[in-house]
Amino acid sequence: MEITAYRHRVQYYETDQMKVVHHSNYIRWFEEARTDFLEKSGFSYAWMEEQGIIIPVLSVSAEYKAMVHYGEDVLIKPTVTGFNGVKLLLSYEVRQEGTGELTTTGTSCHCFLDREYRPLRLKKEFPQVYMMFASCLEGQE
Amino acid sequence: MEITAYRHRVQYYETDQMKVVHHSNYIRWFEEARTDFLEKSGFSYAWMEEQGIIIPVLSVSAEYKAMVHYGEDVLIKPTVTGFNGVKLLLSYEVRQEGTGELTTTGTSCHCFLDREYRPLRLKKEFPQVYMMFASCLEGQE
Amino acid sequence: MEITAYRHRVQYYETDQMKVVHHSNYIRWFEEARTDFLEKSGFSYAWMEEQGIIIPVLSVSAEYKAMVHYGEDVLIKPTVTGFNGVKLLLSYEVRQEGTGELTTTGTSCHCFLDREYRPLRLKKEFPQVYMMFASCLEGQE
Amino acid sequence: MEITAYRHRVQYYETDQMKVVHHSNYIRWFEEARTDFLEKSGFSYAWMEEQGIIIPVLSVSAEYKAMVHYGEDVLIKPTVTGFNGVKLLLSYEVRQEGTGELTTTGTSCHCFLDREYRPLRLKKEFPQVYMMFASCLEGQE
Repeated sequence: MEITAYRHRVQYYETDQMKVVHHSNYIRWFEEARTDFLEKSGFSYAWMEEQGIIIPVLSVSAEYKAMVHYGEDVLIKPTVTGFNGVKLLLSYEVRQEGTGELTTTGTSCHCFLDREYRPLRLKKEFPQVYMMFASCLEGQE
Repeated sequence: MEITAYRHRVQYYETDQMKVVHHSNYIRWFEEARTDFLEKSGFSYAWMEEQGIIIPVLSVSAEYKAMVHYGEDVLIKPTVTGFNGVKLLLSYEVRQEGTGELTTTGTSCHCFLDREYRPLRLKKEFPQVYMMFASCLEGQE
Repeated sequence: MEITAYRHRVQYYETDQMKVVHHSNYIRWFEEARTDFLEKSGFSYAWMEEQGIIIPVLSVSAEYKAMVHYGEDVLIKPTVTGFNGVKLLLSYEVRQEGTGELTTTGTSCHCFLDREYRPLRLKKEFPQVYMMFASCLEGQE
Repeated sequence: MEITAYRHRVQYYETDQMKVVHHSNYIRWFEEARTDFLEKSGFSYAWMEEQGIIIPVLSVSAEYKAMVHYGEDVLIKPTVTGFNGVKLLLSYEVRQEGTGELTTTGTSCHCFLDREYRPLRLKKEFPQVYMMFASCLEGQE
């Protein structure tokens, strides 16, 4: 499965007094793009939580290469860079919609837990979800 | 001019531990819808700020009638309920996209300032912006 | 019981490109002050949720009288303006710590629900909480 | 100069429907702690911006080791791990106030710009600020 970019319109409340988007918001945009990717995959995160699949964030990072301003639209493209059924690694690219300029890159690392916060054997208990993530990883290679 | 509804997808970071959207986010959604309305009117807020038109918020209110959850899409419809060139009154209705259920109502009140934060004579200095707001008010009546 | 003011230091991430605090944050400051008031009352909101007392927000409002900037400290003082065991009305005053200048006023309205989101008979089931709110109301009169 | 820890009370609006603090807020807590450190150093960030010293964020990272909940107080301790007058590296430790449990670690990288967003020769133009950061680095070694 190939992951398509997610479009975000910059909001006024996302700016700070440096007149650019506050750096904490990119972490939220990564989540928006992640959520969008899961929904397009057929396994929305809302559905996953209902099934008892919880996917907490173990770590995040972001690198700011160019500032983004109010009134601009950006495209956020997630890529599955690692998946073994236990951990999931994603990377993100944020680009200006018009020019394609790369403004920000980032990563997030996740694991899979059940409702009692115990590690989940995704391959055994939710093989179709396992297959989806695995197919994204193959698409990158 | 008739104002069309703005669509917002509820994000995970907008929820709180009551498992619903935190009430402060609706104030931000009103701003998203206001921004969208201005852009569709031909006078985006980014353009207005460039021209030296600042439209601060004097007051806001929100009434919560039904909870909104992660994974839901809402439509936010602003209406111009008052405008005299000096003050602008807007009201907002938030509805579930699927069912049309009214979840939230709200208002905001604004004035018009120039770059030095002095009251702006909109009718004289930006007659086209004045006309646009006036036409929205007429559309409601 | 008299409610004391809650001190909030303005954060950089609370500003917007107008170089003032974004108006949505005051709604969050009201919540901070409300939480602080409950904790000082001996019935923290975390404790209430554990007991099965949920206090959702039915409505909020804010009036912006003067702008607040990064690097300033404000005092937020909640007042119980209405309480009958079923509904709770609060008002808020935000003042500059140094000068005492009134920058913002606001209100919030709440009800009391149990874990199943049914109305809670506070006077019967949690008489000590009932008494605390009632004593705050008397303090105002 | 030794940097002392900054205390943050977890707010309700910082939680998400997993009933823990949303991961994006830690990036904001790092900023709160950074701001607090600068103020204690005698060179508040508000003062720096007035002088024309802008310190943008080039990158951030966070590692989540244990969840933090509403009603808890955390201590956030920044450490200067790198400084050469051109770039500033900070690391952060977030700990439960009561138990000292390490919940989160993180980093941020910054540069120094003037009002026109040109690189600033901190050592030459603001030697006292340069000395302060340098003394923090020495304190770590």
